[in-house]
Amino acid sequence: MAFHILERDREGALKLSRALSDAVERIGHCKVCRTLSEDEVCSLCADSRREQSLICIVETPADVLAIEQATDFNGNFFVLMGHLSPLDGIGPTELGLDLFEERLKQGGVTEIILATNPTVEGETTAHYISQMADEYGVPASRLAHGIPLGGELEYVDSGTLAHAFSGRQKIKP
Amino acid sequence: MAFHILERDREGALKLSRALSDAVERIGHCKVCRTLSEDEVCSLCADSRREQSLICIVETPADVLAIEQATDFNGNFFVLMGHLSPLDGIGPTELGLDLFEERLKQGGVTEIILATNPTVEGETTAHYISQMADEYGVPASRLAHGIPLGGELEYVDSGTLAHAFSGRQKIKP
Repeated sequence: MAFHILERDREGALKLSRALSDAVERIGHCKVCRTLSEDEVCSLCADSRREQSLICIVETPADVLAIEQATDFNGNFFVLMGHLSPLDGIGPTELGLDLFEERLKQGGVTEIILATNPTVEGETTAHYISQMADEYGVPASRLAHGIPLGGELEYVDSGTLAHAFSGRQKIKP
Repeated sequence: MAFHILERDREGALKLSRALSDAVERIGHCKVCRTLSEDEVCSLCADSRREQSLICIVETPADVLAIEQATDFNGNFFVLMGHLSPLDGIGPTELGLDLFEERLKQGGVTEIILATNPTVEGETTAHYISQMADEYGVPASRLAHGIPLGGELEYVDSGTLAHAFSGRQKIKP
């Protein structure tokens, strides 16, 4: 890419350079949900048609996009911008959980959906937040673990298979 | 492999040949669960310590192994040796579902766990069997669908993500 823009497209390189510095200057964090946003409050948080009482907690802004594209979720998000990782010095404050606690204190939240990644760190973070929600009497739920669609049992790792087995659900005829 | 055994190990080739023909001659299907077995009734079906009232339905003998290794399931299996596929001439009889219906008729089955693959054919087969179970008043359940352990939301396909989202489960504090 470096050779291409220097040999063929110096004009484009300048454009790219300006776009990058603009992005760095202008894009900050939404003060409500902490996602990346050009405005003080991002478009999702500013949208009054969305359910304010439902909050989905994710690790990154990319997860917000993935959930927006895949599901018909119509609540608000809260973006941690990472996960708990004490060894790297990332504790609750670095994830903005004090901000989130303020929101719980204000009341009006009826469900918290914990959509952190199903990794060790993600699970730990989800556990921590579910305890916090419990203090304020807000029910928390976790995305389902199991076999991905189109997958084959034979090739699924045993941890996932065990989870899928114990998490089996009754079929309503 | 062919060159290796012809050049270096003709003795081994004869051994392999005998093992193969032995396997073809001796290994048939268990008359209870239809899995591959040397005996008339396979070791899992013959084991009286296993729960007879719980039946897990899978597509292949490899799935039996996968579930045995990954979970603490202690019931019986029923192996379809395939899935419904009318275009290939595979209907309920080819999957041994008449045999399975006999077992339902006899009674004593308290739960059927449908562990067919989460593919279109697997889902269709599971649906067909759940209807059959319903006729005999036996509850059926399906393995959980969702995000595999260790996976990242961002890289999960949207169908799986939508399933995981709608199938979210309450966290009990």
